[in-house]
This record gives sequence, C-alpha cells and structure tokens, in this order.
Amino acid sequence: MDDAHSAAPAWLGDPNLLAAFWRYERALMTNDVAELDELFARGGTTVRSEAGSALVGHDAIASFRAARPPVPLRHLRRVHLRPISADAAVIIAETIRGDRGTGVQTQLWQRVEGLWEVTVAHVSTVPGLQFSAPKLTAAEERAIWATPEARRPLVESVAHPDAVAHPDAVAHPDAQAHPDGTGRVGSLAGVRVAVKDLFAIAGERIGAGNPTFLAGKSAETTTSPAVAALLAEGAEITGLAQTDELAFSIAGTNVHYGTPPNPAAPGRIPGGSTSGPASAVALGLADLGLGTDTAGSIRVPGSYTGLFGLRTTHDAVSREGLVPLAPSFDTVGLLARDLPTLAAGARAILSTGSTAPGNSADAARSDSAAPPAAISTLIVDPSLVALADADTQASFEAGLRALSLASGTPVVQTSSAIDPAELEVWFDAFRLVQQFEAWVSDRSFVEANPGALDPAISERFRVASGLTDNQALDARLVLARATVRLEQLVPPGSALALPSTSGPAPERDASPAEIDRVRGATLRLTCLASLSGLPALTLPFGRVGTLPVGLCLIGARGADQALIGLATPRA
Amino acid sequence: MDDAHSAAPAWLGDPNLLAAFWRYERALMTNDVAELDELFARGGTTVRSEAGSALVGHDAIASFRAARPPVPLRHLRRVHLRPISADAAVIIAETIRGDRGTGVQTQLWQRVEGLWEVTVAHVSTVPGLQFSAPKLTAAEERAIWATPEARRPLVESVAHPDAVAHPDAVAHPDAQAHPDGTGRVGSLAGVRVAVKDLFAIAGERIGAGNPTFLAGKSAETTTSPAVAALLAEGAEITGLAQTDELAFSIAGTNVHYGTPPNPAAPGRIPGGSTSGPASAVALGLADLGLGTDTAGSIRVPGSYTGLFGLRTTHDAVSREGLVPLAPSFDTVGLLARDLPTLAAGARAILSTGSTAPGNSADAARSDSAAPPAAISTLIVDPSLVALADADTQASFEAGLRALSLASGTPVVQTSSAIDPAELEVWFDAFRLVQQFEAWVSDRSFVEANPGALDPAISERFRVASGLTDNQALDARLVLARATVRLEQLVPPGSALALPSTSGPAPERDASPAEIDRVRGATLRLTCLASLSGLPALTLPFGRVGTLPVGLCLIGARGADQALIGLATPRA
Repeated sequence: MDDAHSAAPAWLGDPNLLAAFWRYERALMTNDVAELDELFARGGTTVRSEAGSALVGHDAIASFRAARPPVPLRHLRRVHLRPISADAAVIIAETIRGDRGTGVQTQLWQRVEGLWEVTVAHVSTVPGLQFSAPKLTAAEERAIWATPEARRPLVESVAHPDAVAHPDAVAHPDAQAHPDGTGRVGSLAGVRVAVKDLFAIAGERIGAGNPTFLAGKSAETTTSPAVAALLAEGAEITGLAQTDELAFSIAGTNVHYGTPPNPAAPGRIPGGSTSGPASAVALGLADLGLGTDTAGSIRVPGSYTGLFGLRTTHDAVSREGLVPLAPSFDTVGLLARDLPTLAAGARAILSTGSTAPGNSADAARSDSAAPPAAISTLIVDPSLVALADADTQASFEAGLRALSLASGTPVVQTSSAIDPAELEVWFDAFRLVQQFEAWVSDRSFVEANPGALDPAISERFRVASGLTDNQALDARLVLARATVRLEQLVPPGSALALPSTSGPAPERDASPAEIDRVRGATLRLTCLASLSGLPALTLPFGRVGTLPVGLCLIGARGADQALIGLATPRA
Repeated sequence: MDDAHSAAPAWLGDPNLLAAFWRYERALMTNDVAELDELFARGGTTVRSEAGSALVGHDAIASFRAARPPVPLRHLRRVHLRPISADAAVIIAETIRGDRGTGVQTQLWQRVEGLWEVTVAHVSTVPGLQFSAPKLTAAEERAIWATPEARRPLVESVAHPDAVAHPDAVAHPDAQAHPDGTGRVGSLAGVRVAVKDLFAIAGERIGAGNPTFLAGKSAETTTSPAVAALLAEGAEITGLAQTDELAFSIAGTNVHYGTPPNPAAPGRIPGGSTSGPASAVALGLADLGLGTDTAGSIRVPGSYTGLFGLRTTHDAVSREGLVPLAPSFDTVGLLARDLPTLAAGARAILSTGSTAPGNSADAARSDSAAPPAAISTLIVDPSLVALADADTQASFEAGLRALSLASGTPVVQTSSAIDPAELEVWFDAFRLVQQFEAWVSDRSFVEANPGALDPAISERFRVASGLTDNQALDARLVLARATVRLEQLVPPGSALALPSTSGPAPERDASPAEIDRVRGATLRLTCLASLSGLPALTLPFGRVGTLPVGLCLIGARGADQALIGLATPRA
C-alpha cells in the first residue's frame, strides 16, 4: 500500500464479515454448491425466500440449490451494510446483469462460534429490459437524432480484413459473420452505434448541435479514425446523435433541438454534452454511444441516464475529424448499457491513439498492445466524496463496497486528501483554460454568426473572449502541478473512486440557480480527470431513490482497459 | 380466556414485537401511509428492497409509498420469526392473495428507545396463476372426470327467484346477471363446480369411483339439495369428478380410473377421497369442488393440493341424494382456490341443513340465519401438533403465527392436552364405527360384486364385516365421551388449530409401508372433527420445501362460517 494511503474507511465494514460475504458471492458466481451450503447456517430454522415463497431449513435450501442452474454473471451494484451487533448484520446487495436485469439479495449474517453464516436470505430479481422500439414523439426524435430516420443507418458496416472474433466478443443476438468471406466476426458485429454529431463521417455534414453551424458545413470527405475503428469491428452506425451546442455544456439541453428524453429518470435532463447518444443508448435505440468528454461530457450523461461510460486517456484515441472544444482536455469516449459492449468499443478505438505529443501536460501514452496493469487498490478521498449530496455519498459508499467485494480489491482512504481550497484553485484554472481554448476553437464561427447561439452559451464565449494569454499560461502551470499531484495520488495499479456527479439528474424545469449549483458541484468532481488527462470510467451503480447516479473510477494514464477489467464481473 | 388454556406458546414470539408487526400489517391493508412511515425507522440508513433495487433512506421510502396504490388484500400464510437479540429480530411473512398471487416480506425489526421499528425490508411477489387450460393426457382426464368432456357441463345454471347479489359476492370476471329478468346476480354466478361423483344429479348416474357400481345405477331423478343450492346461486357444474372407490380412502388413488394429477406437488398423490374435485380445482378446471368428508376426504386433498377446504358441521348440510359411507361422520364439504369462493359456496349449502336429529352425538345445529359467533381465541394443543412430521410442525407454527397476526386473534396453549394414549382409544373407536357403518352402507354392493373392488378396499370391507353390534356400541360410547371433551376444548368463540395432515402429499410411488405410516398419522389428526361432528377448515398456509400442507381449524358446532370469517383477510 502506498504511503499516501491509510487504512480502509470505517464505513466499509468488518473485514471478516465482508470476507465471508465475498466467499459467498464467489461461490455463487462459480456455482460452488458445497461452499454455498457451507455458508448457510445448518439446521431447520434457516430461511431463504425468493419470488412468492420461503424455503425453510438448510436441507430444503440445499436441495433447491442443487437443482437450479448457475446464477448468471452479474455486477454487484451496491452493497449496503447494516450492523446489528458484534455478531449480527444485514447485508443488502443490489446487482445488475449484462442483460440489464437487476436483483436484490438481503442476507442476515450471524456469527456462530466465530464463523459468519447466513441465517436468513431473501432474493428478488427482475428480467432484463426488453428494448422494443419505444414510441417517441417527433420532438423527442429531433432532440435525439441529428440525422432524420430516413437517412439512418448512414454507413454500411465494412469488413475489416483483420477483424477476427475477439474471445470475449459481445454476444449480440443478431451478430453475424462478416460478408468478407473469411467467416470471421468483428468484435462489434451487430452493435448499433449512435455517433455524437461532432465526428466526421464521409458524405455527412457535421452539425455540432447548432443549425447555423450545420448550414455552413459541407459534406465531410473522410471518416474520423474512432468511427472507422468501430466500423472495422463490424459495428453499424444507427445515426448521428445530438449534442449540446458546440459541446459546451454538461446539461444535455439544446435550445434548437430540444432535450433528449432520459428514460432512467423521466422528467429530468439526460446530461451532456453527449446527450443524444446517451438518450439513444438508454432507450435501446443504439447499443454504443460514441462521444467526447472535455469537462465531463461522457461521465455526466452516463451518470444521469444509468449507463457505463468511458472517458479515455487524453490522446489515447485519435481526435482527427472531430470538432474541437478545448483540445488540451478533449477526449473521445463511449457509453453503453453493458460493460462487454463498452469494453469491445474501447478496444477498437484505443488502437487509434495519436503518437504525436498531445496538448496535455504529460506525454505518457497508452500502449494498446501491452496488457494494462491490473488494478489492485481502490482509493477513496473523503474530501472529494463530500462534494456530492448526502444521499449520493451514502449510495457511493454502497457502490464502492460492492465494487471492492466483487473484484476482491481493497479500499484504502488516502491520507493526502485534496483540500477543498486547493481544488477550487485547480477548478478555476481548468475552467479558464477550457474557456480560453474554446474561444480559440469557435471564435470565427461565433463572431461570424451573432445571435446564432443559445444566449447562455453565447455568454460563456463572451467571458472566454476576454481572457488573456498570460491568464491562460498561469492557469496551465496550476494544472501541470495539479496533474503531478493526481498522478501521485493514483499510481499505476490503483484507481481513485469518486461520485461521477454530485447527484442524480436535475429536473428539466429546475430553477437556473439549482442547475448552476449542480453544475458547479459536478464540475469540481469531473474536472480532476479532465485537467490531468487521466482515464475515467463511470459505472451505473448508484441510486438516489430510483434515480441513477454514477460511481467514477479514475485510473493511471493508459489504464483505460484496466479500469474496465476491474469492474468486469468474474466467475 | 378459558381455564383450560394457559398462556401463549413461547414460539409465538415477543408480544410487543408481534403487536408492532400487526400494526404494520393492518396499516398496509388499510393503506395507512402515515402509520407505515411511523413504523419504518427514521433517517438515511433504512432500506426497502423490491424487485430489482433498493430504496435507501426513510424519505425515499416514504415518497415511494405515498405514490403507490394500496397493497391488495392478502392472507398472511406463514410468519417466521428469527430473534437475533433482545432488541432485534427478523420476521419473514409469506402471503397469498385472492388471485393466488404470492409474496414474501422480510423485515429486520430493531427496538430503539423501547419502540420496535423496521430498519430493513425486502418484498417480493409473483402474480396470480393464470389458469390457461392445462394440457392433460387422456389418462389424466379419466382420473379427474367421471363424465366425459362431451357431456360437460351437465346442468345449466338455473335462476333462483330469491337469488340476489351477495354484498361480498365472489368477483368472478365472467359473472353475469342471471337471465331471470331481475338483473340480480347469484353469489356463485360464473363459478364452475366440480361435483364429486357421489351426489345425485337428475338425469345422471352416480359412479362412486367404481365402474361396476356405475353400471348398476340408473339415472337419478332428483338433484341433491347441496348441488341444487349451488346452482340456485348461479354456479355452473363443470362435471362429475372422480372419487376414491366408494369414498373409502384418503389417498386420492383409484385402481379403475387412475390417480388425478396434483399440480401443486407433481409426482405426488392428490389426497382423497374428494380427489377429482381437488385436482380439477387445483388445475383451474373448476373454481369450486363439492365433495364429502367422512374421515378427512376434504381436508386431506385440500392439504395436499394447496386448497382452502371446509368440512361442514355434521348435519348442517343435507346429505339427501348422497351415496353414504358412514352416516354418523359423513359431511358435505367444499374446496376452492380462494376463500371468497369457498365462503359463497358455504353460504349456499349451509341453508340446506336437515333439522331431523342426525347420527352424531350432539343435536346442536348450525342456524344459517343467525350470524355465527366470531372467533376470538386460537387454541393449540402441543400433543396434537407433535403428531405431524418435524418440518410440518415448524411450518404449522409459522402458519398459526400468521393467522393470529392477520386476524388479531391470540393463540393460547391448552392445559388439557389430549394424551396420545387417549387419542389412540378415540381413533380406534372412530375407525371401528366408520368400518361398521361402511359395511352397512355398502354390504349389498360388495357381496353382490365379488372382485369388483380394489383388493385393498375389499380388505377393509372384509375387516368391517366381522365387527359386532356390541363392538360398535362400545365404540360409540367412547366417541360420545370424546365429543364432550372436544366440545369443552373448543367452546364457541374459539378454534383449535392443528396440522391438516401429518405432512405433505406422499409420492405416487411411495412404498406401501410409507403410505400406511402417513395415513395412520394423518387420520389421528383428522378423526377429531370427524368423530365429534365439528366443522373444520383447512387453509393452504403451510409448506414443506415447496410442497403444500394445510393448517386446520376446528370450530364449535355450527361455527362453519365463523371459521371462514376468522381466516378472511380484513382491511
């Protein structure tokens, strides 16, 4: 353990109890019936309930277990611990399967002669969502898609000569062999991708969430490498999906095209700026969303719509053909309903990384050929967690306990916490550089088209236009130091866990003051990966009431796939 | 409380905790949201799980509760209590709704500042069974029905001029106004009845479970009053259903017609002798089974197939037109999947009671016009419970706890328990009189048709044929004294609770020795209501593993409807 880290946080719970729970979870995943029987208390009073009835007695439960098929592989999404006494506790585990089916498992654990065992259990599950095409209004269609239905899918899948079925290729029911004559299947065969309307696709015009921008564009002549990489693995593009205007927002609203629906939190914003892909994937209209993340534009919609999302290491994926916002921070990212799809997408796009020095502080690059170092420590910084709303903090703890148990990875609390005042300095510097670069990126468009932008976005550019080179230079120096601090905090082989957003999605009609508060609190969390260029994975493990809120992992540079590996359920 | 009864049995649990549970249950049934909120622990750590996810925190749970519709009325089927400490316990409640939907509710109760409150809850439910016509083999059809499909339904519903919709008429989806021009609906409109093939129906021949018996019969010219009473309330007869041969068995097997399937316990016998109606009702081919109970012929199949069953007070229902077995004990009874249907059927047939002195010891009669005295005490006799298998005893306790909680009726343990040796004397006397009377009833048929009977049934008649009048007289004196004892044990306003059978249904291919053991143990339980003529209600509340086993209530003479009232869920 790194010197900067102290012991596990107290809320994690009694290590012996958690070890017993972990043994149980592992035995469940490997269908180790003998071990499961061992962990259930002997005798006639043990109760196991499921659906509409209870089985009473160890023998009846063992008979049931011997006869049932193995439990499907699943994520532990949240694990709640409720101690009763030194020798008794209830553990509630919320789970989610690859097919989006969910479950809850309530267990009374009691310590008998020094050993923890289950004396009462109750399990319930719901099947995976069946994505029959949702009925959308014309306004919802327009808010999600930049390309009208008649023109989707835009691009036929192309057979990549090197595409081979990956050993853990996504098992999509409609996956077919590519018509390249080799019989080989790309790892994304059958996967439908919603591409944020910032990426170049040959023959298509880029809209960037603004009609005037679109009107001024002609059709692209080349396709962005990230898009091409997905196509090469057999993915199909379902359409270009909407973005917040010029990607300069994390709300998921757009005055020109409307707000895409958030099926996981009806009546609430979906988060942005990768709003259209998030909505499309959450609705089941696409399986994978290709987007960008500058200040949180993958992580925020992922958190708000209950999706897995990856912000890749800065420069690990090519940004060629992409409309820039703030190149020092701009990254390509992905959203998916399940982790195998996200993993397959990540493998594809991470092969496109530029080798030229990027704009971020550090030049270390992800090497997609070398297997990333496995992550063996989860780090938590209480001062970062404290930035979230109280309910979100509690849910975060349950989620982190779940991740620790499912992956067998210890959680340690850092002793070199980020001071709130220090974070404020970093955040100000980040925002300044982002605005400075955004003005560089969009100045010509903004100046040439007065009145074309949402007044709120316009105001951001007005502020940005007043920044000086010296201000930007000072801020970059702050960010360079902050990056060193963060790299020390998250060495290779570790991941920093924090809430993806300060809370669940605000209501669509929340007051501007409330929206601002949420935006400020969330950006203080998201800016850490953004300013340092480190990869970040958001997991849909948290809930406040019924609303999703993500758990975020920040990894060392290039640890994109290691983060996914950490979160992947194992038998 | 009667002097013969001591305090509540210890296994029932802490009265304060049960009172809190009962408050909760009542509040749930009346949708008293404020009371439910009060009983859930305040603060952010309370967890309520259902289906695939958990709600965390009192406020989130309260919001959920305020928005949901009232919980449907339900039976508490079993309540399991698992004490953890003086201040903590888990209560698991299994429930069943009128539509046969089931549920389980696991709650962690903790005592805080002297008050019990719920800190963790987990609820799961399964919808009611959808009785789409099951696919039956020809052999199964023949084992269930005495009348071929082409001849069913046999009798059209007839409009009774006095039939009016009962205020708590069974809400059958296909209930229609009777075509009598009054627009009034019988309380059994739309209810399909399977009639045990022992009852006279004008135009039909009675088979009594034996082909030779059937061959010797001509069509009946009148209809039994019990059958007519159901028809008068708008019921429809779906068919005559099979019985064990001459009703002289509780197994549910028949060498001539086969064993009707037991859908609640596949591969196991359905119990008898009301086997065909039990199978038909359990399969959803009928809604109500009309049968008889001499030594347990309603209660045993009810217990084995998971149905509600009523053995009526002796002579409270007319036995006119019924093939007798042992008239001192013969009673008419009913089976149903739900209690409202059973209650409506009971109201109908209890109006037919003979006023002539019956053959049983006591002449007190049920008066269907006067409301039966409500039952305010549940009595348990540990020596009777001990006759059941160990798992069945445990399930019985959970069932009785459930009934006590749901009805708000205290349980007391009798201090004048029935001594096992004494019970043995009663049982021998009961069996002797039953055999003696059976020989009187069937001698002419048995003697005229050698070889027509199952050898096992034949052997029972051979034993019976050797009994003398003096033996029968002595036995009747024993039964008269036993009846007085039982009437003292179960005074009006009380009910004696005991397992309906000694265990769940034996396997169809169980050894003869095992069948005999189960039969002997079960008859010792069922003979109590039989020998005394008291009414008995079997409730499908028990389970051993996944197999149903009934909980039986014996009431005072004429308390048939009071027993049903006790078990009826109340809001």
